[in-house]
Amino acid sequence: MQNAEILAVGSELLTPTKSDTNSLWLTEQLNALGVEVVAKSIVGDDRPRLAEAVRAAAARSDFLFITGGLGPTEDDVTRDAVAAALVLGQELREELLEQIAARFKRIGRPMAENNRRQAMLIEGAEAMENDRGTAPGQWLRSGRCQIALLPGPPREMKAMFELQVLPRLVPLVPPAVLRTRWYRVAGMGESDLDQLIAPVYTRYTNPVTTILASPGDVHVHLRARCAEESEAESLLAELGSQLEALLADRIYSTDGSSLEEVVGQLLTARGETVCVAESITGGGLGERLTRVPGASRYFRGGFLTYCDEAKQSLLGVSPELLTEHTAVSEPVAVAMAAGAQIRLNANWAISTTGYAGPATDTHVKALTKPGTVFVCIAGPPGAVVHRLEIGVDRDRVRHFTAIYALNYLRLLLG
Amino acid sequence: MQNAEILAVGSELLTPTKSDTNSLWLTEQLNALGVEVVAKSIVGDDRPRLAEAVRAAAARSDFLFITGGLGPTEDDVTRDAVAAALVLGQELREELLEQIAARFKRIGRPMAENNRRQAMLIEGAEAMENDRGTAPGQWLRSGRCQIALLPGPPREMKAMFELQVLPRLVPLVPPAVLRTRWYRVAGMGESDLDQLIAPVYTRYTNPVTTILASPGDVHVHLRARCAEESEAESLLAELGSQLEALLADRIYSTDGSSLEEVVGQLLTARGETVCVAESITGGGLGERLTRVPGASRYFRGGFLTYCDEAKQSLLGVSPELLTEHTAVSEPVAVAMAAGAQIRLNANWAISTTGYAGPATDTHVKALTKPGTVFVCIAGPPGAVVHRLEIGVDRDRVRHFTAIYALNYLRLLLG
Repeated sequence: MQNAEILAVGSELLTPTKSDTNSLWLTEQLNALGVEVVAKSIVGDDRPRLAEAVRAAAARSDFLFITGGLGPTEDDVTRDAVAAALVLGQELREELLEQIAARFKRIGRPMAENNRRQAMLIEGAEAMENDRGTAPGQWLRSGRCQIALLPGPPREMKAMFELQVLPRLVPLVPPAVLRTRWYRVAGMGESDLDQLIAPVYTRYTNPVTTILASPGDVHVHLRARCAEESEAESLLAELGSQLEALLADRIYSTDGSSLEEVVGQLLTARGETVCVAESITGGGLGERLTRVPGASRYFRGGFLTYCDEAKQSLLGVSPELLTEHTAVSEPVAVAMAAGAQIRLNANWAISTTGYAGPATDTHVKALTKPGTVFVCIAGPPGAVVHRLEIGVDRDRVRHFTAIYALNYLRLLLG
Repeated sequence: MQNAEILAVGSELLTPTKSDTNSLWLTEQLNALGVEVVAKSIVGDDRPRLAEAVRAAAARSDFLFITGGLGPTEDDVTRDAVAAALVLGQELREELLEQIAARFKRIGRPMAENNRRQAMLIEGAEAMENDRGTAPGQWLRSGRCQIALLPGPPREMKAMFELQVLPRLVPLVPPAVLRTRWYRVAGMGESDLDQLIAPVYTRYTNPVTTILASPGDVHVHLRARCAEESEAESLLAELGSQLEALLADRIYSTDGSSLEEVVGQLLTARGETVCVAESITGGGLGERLTRVPGASRYFRGGFLTYCDEAKQSLLGVSPELLTEHTAVSEPVAVAMAAGAQIRLNANWAISTTGYAGPATDTHVKALTKPGTVFVCIAGPPGAVVHRLEIGVDRDRVRHFTAIYALNYLRLLLG
């Protein structure tokens, strides 16, 4: 088996609060290709130490992946350290400088003089394009060792690995085709999902199943590696069909679309519109809906009614209802959605009201348990209210409420 | 400053799902003593690789902390690897064997034969008692480097560090205090900020300056380490005052408060309120304001008017204004803020309108350049409009608009 080392660069990764998470992701990718990770290191922005680490790793391993330290500032030392370690020169490459300049132009910002440093290429290296940031990567060989210089920000690193490293790496590992399948799942946490599907996927070492979770959004990734494409596809179909049966309508997308994109597609297909009346989410639901370009075609607008007064004046919720039930209640959730739906003349309205905590925030009646949230979806079939108990972490409660609300609408539209 | 390396041993730490967390805790402990952690590594249960890592680290660092690999089984290789690296022998120590046997007796389990391996002590090492497990630690010197062998399970490692390592470590480090200062900066990017302040901070090796950036929000961290507290404070004051002069009112917080917290504090202090009228941000501004517990005291609510019709019906923007100037214009930004301010009876109103892109999203007049945004802050001094050109990345434009808008309000309140 071929082996690899991963070297993360950055003094911030040597503080008590920051972990290197890139190496976990890289390890997963490499293992799937049959490459074993035999050591990982973290070195600060320290040229001599980094050069020593590069020299040692390059002398003993088949692959060396270096993440971070490719930025434009003085303390970004990776390029210089690798060149020094391997006794190679560097030169300014005009085509890289043009790419970097073009990127700044595209995002409409002036390029600082120190960004020129990012156009320096190590002798013998190939540049790897970074489509999500300014730092190009580099790919070079030293003796038996193939070395990749990758940017530190995870989203840049991952994209570069997929688009630039994989095509170079795959021919160097024993022949195989790799076929993948993605499921995006809403409405359940990572642990629950794992408990549900682990009995199935753990029976397979090929495909490899990976669960990638961000709060409220879980992605299940299947990756089959075989000598033949048909074999890989049939393995994916075999495991995939079992997972689909277990997850059912919790799967909201298999083509990479986000939850808000799926909701937008469903609304557009039906020629319908939506509006929001947000209390606990404070705008997070509207923000999510309008992440999708062209959302104005189906998003009619919304109301942020964080205090009782705004619920009355903007949405027409009656003072009696608020007094009798408090703002965090099913009747108020319904009245909020109805108020928005009428005022914005929309087919659907989503309202959110709840108590995000912390418990010291006493603007709602003490009898409401922190973490209690009501979401109402009003639409052609009438109004449906969901009561959530998401816990008491303020940010988490607000974040999950927005995702759950969108998912409830998706299930009604689907 | 004395430096340390941390070496975690165990193949399980090289899998895609497991992180070494011991090193974060150790880093915190060491930093507090004024010892800087300059590198961290993870090596599997691989004797030659581990020996090489130990040899290299011992040759270059003041302290080396090795966690894990002290168990009783064949794949616990730390003792052997350290002995091999330093060309030292090992001997079975009867007193350790007795301690281990006594521990098994205490917990009522039979001692396995392979636990005898844990009674092997490296030549010249002191044994460190483990009161929470069977593996004794070891403390030895090699040249300039002081080496600690600690067990891998966090509760055993932490207890041994506190009870056995600290009493040995403290006499070896010079008395010193560590003092820090944080600046949080809005309204400029990392590169621009670095270009502005690097000429000053690079002249100081003490304090150490670190720049940590997330989009739209940059943190500058100064860390001074001196024998005396007064000396550290005076170094911080010396460098800090220069940075403060350069950054001026771009510094929004020195106590760790977020931008929305600072805005909330300023509004609360003035007894004033704010509301929002969001088009391009779609709710992101309200979401940010309501991240702060108790925001209902100063946040009156808001309107999400993503389409022209909602700008008219909810905010009273006149159709003529929209036709004449388009939605992305200074007069419409002003009319939106005024409409919200009146309807919600707030002291301040923030409106956002713009064209986030991508360029194919043709719901605004083709003459508007993608990335053009208008933010209006209406309040007691009247209405002020800012025109932004943040680039054409949709997410980035929306994200920055919300931050810039809050920052404009902060500057008016401050």
